[in-house]
Amino acid sequence: MQKRCDEEAVFVVEGPKMAAEALASGFTVRTVCATAEWKAESGKWEEYYEVSQAELERLSNFKSPNQVWMLVERERRAEVGERGSALVLALDRVQDPGNVGTMLRTADWFGIRHVVCSRDTASCYNPKVVQASMGAVFRTWVEYVDLAEWLAASGLPVYGASLQGRPFTELEKPERGVLVIGNESAGISEAVMRQVTHPVLIPNIGGTAESLNASVAAGILMCEFGGKN
Amino acid sequence: MQKRCDEEAVFVVEGPKMAAEALASGFTVRTVCATAEWKAESGKWEEYYEVSQAELERLSNFKSPNQVWMLVERERRAEVGERGSALVLALDRVQDPGNVGTMLRTADWFGIRHVVCSRDTASCYNPKVVQASMGAVFRTWVEYVDLAEWLAASGLPVYGASLQGRPFTELEKPERGVLVIGNESAGISEAVMRQVTHPVLIPNIGGTAESLNASVAAGILMCEFGGKN
Repeated sequence: MQKRCDEEAVFVVEGPKMAAEALASGFTVRTVCATAEWKAESGKWEEYYEVSQAELERLSNFKSPNQVWMLVERERRAEVGERGSALVLALDRVQDPGNVGTMLRTADWFGIRHVVCSRDTASCYNPKVVQASMGAVFRTWVEYVDLAEWLAASGLPVYGASLQGRPFTELEKPERGVLVIGNESAGISEAVMRQVTHPVLIPNIGGTAESLNASVAAGILMCEFGGKN
Repeated sequence: MQKRCDEEAVFVVEGPKMAAEALASGFTVRTVCATAEWKAESGKWEEYYEVSQAELERLSNFKSPNQVWMLVERERRAEVGERGSALVLALDRVQDPGNVGTMLRTADWFGIRHVVCSRDTASCYNPKVVQASMGAVFRTWVEYVDLAEWLAASGLPVYGASLQGRPFTELEKPERGVLVIGNESAGISEAVMRQVTHPVLIPNIGGTAESLNASVAAGILMCEFGGKN
């Protein structure tokens, strides 16, 4: 299914909440399969295939599929990005789809419209990313690029989350900049780290944990560098 | 298995990293089952049952079990809490084990030793909580209580994450206090909200998301109220 979706440049959206986001988003919805239950609750989308719960379970990526499954066309949302935001979020080989989705959701909360990912970061069209993003995948501009090259060409100050960085409380907040979050266990790759102008640490005053969860660290830094500007 | 663990007041710890944390923690390890691979890498624990990969898979809660599975006795870690911390973290009916584990990990990072949970919050001995906590379950004092009663009796200022709260940037940070995080979709319950003296919001300047992930919101507020004192 994933291969077929890649070839046809579509992605799967599931559940009434995400389906409502998709239908309101301006993305092109290609196919909708839903149970009679959805029909009753929705009413907004005329052309769809009515399926049984058993059929929905065969289509779904989840153990407990919920009323509706749809295919949506992948689109570059550059115009979303062009509205601009002071901060760009960059993900360097983030592996866990839940983390990528959660980071998109957090970016969306803090008004960060543009997310740039290394090519080995989990696809924003992965069903678990779509789910964890809570609709943010429809509202942010996500690009997959050679991240080291992109950062070098950007000319922006680059803040990279690193256990060897300086506490964020000691750093000036830039007018514009990029915040890089690395892999869950290995952190930022060497090639990308060479483009980081400001390694940044979340101080663990009095703490004993080895590290923070990647989504939590990203959230704290987005709040510090993006949300309060 | 979960019922049996509850009856015997033990919990399951899996994988070499968590196993090393358990053995170093001062908790009482009761039973260890491990593959020959672990033997080679560990060497520190003499009495264990050697099992095959297939046997490990039958014991394990995870799809890809990793070398070692152990039963550890549940203990109240009150002495950890007695070292005290300026901030107490309170969880009100947080459902997702990944979130509870991640919040323990974050608390541990910010030096928050004492975590108080409503009785309907996911158990800190759930294998997914143990895993997501990255060892923090061994280093924090986690209590399950009637949360509204506990808060009323504490006499502390109570900060509650709420979309109807005041931006945290406008609030004074207390010398001591409690931070309450509510359920992932329904937020803080009515009974607990009556004990909240300071509802607190993470401002979403320029953002469009409906809410933040519970672990991310908890992380930002722990950083603001705990980590920088």
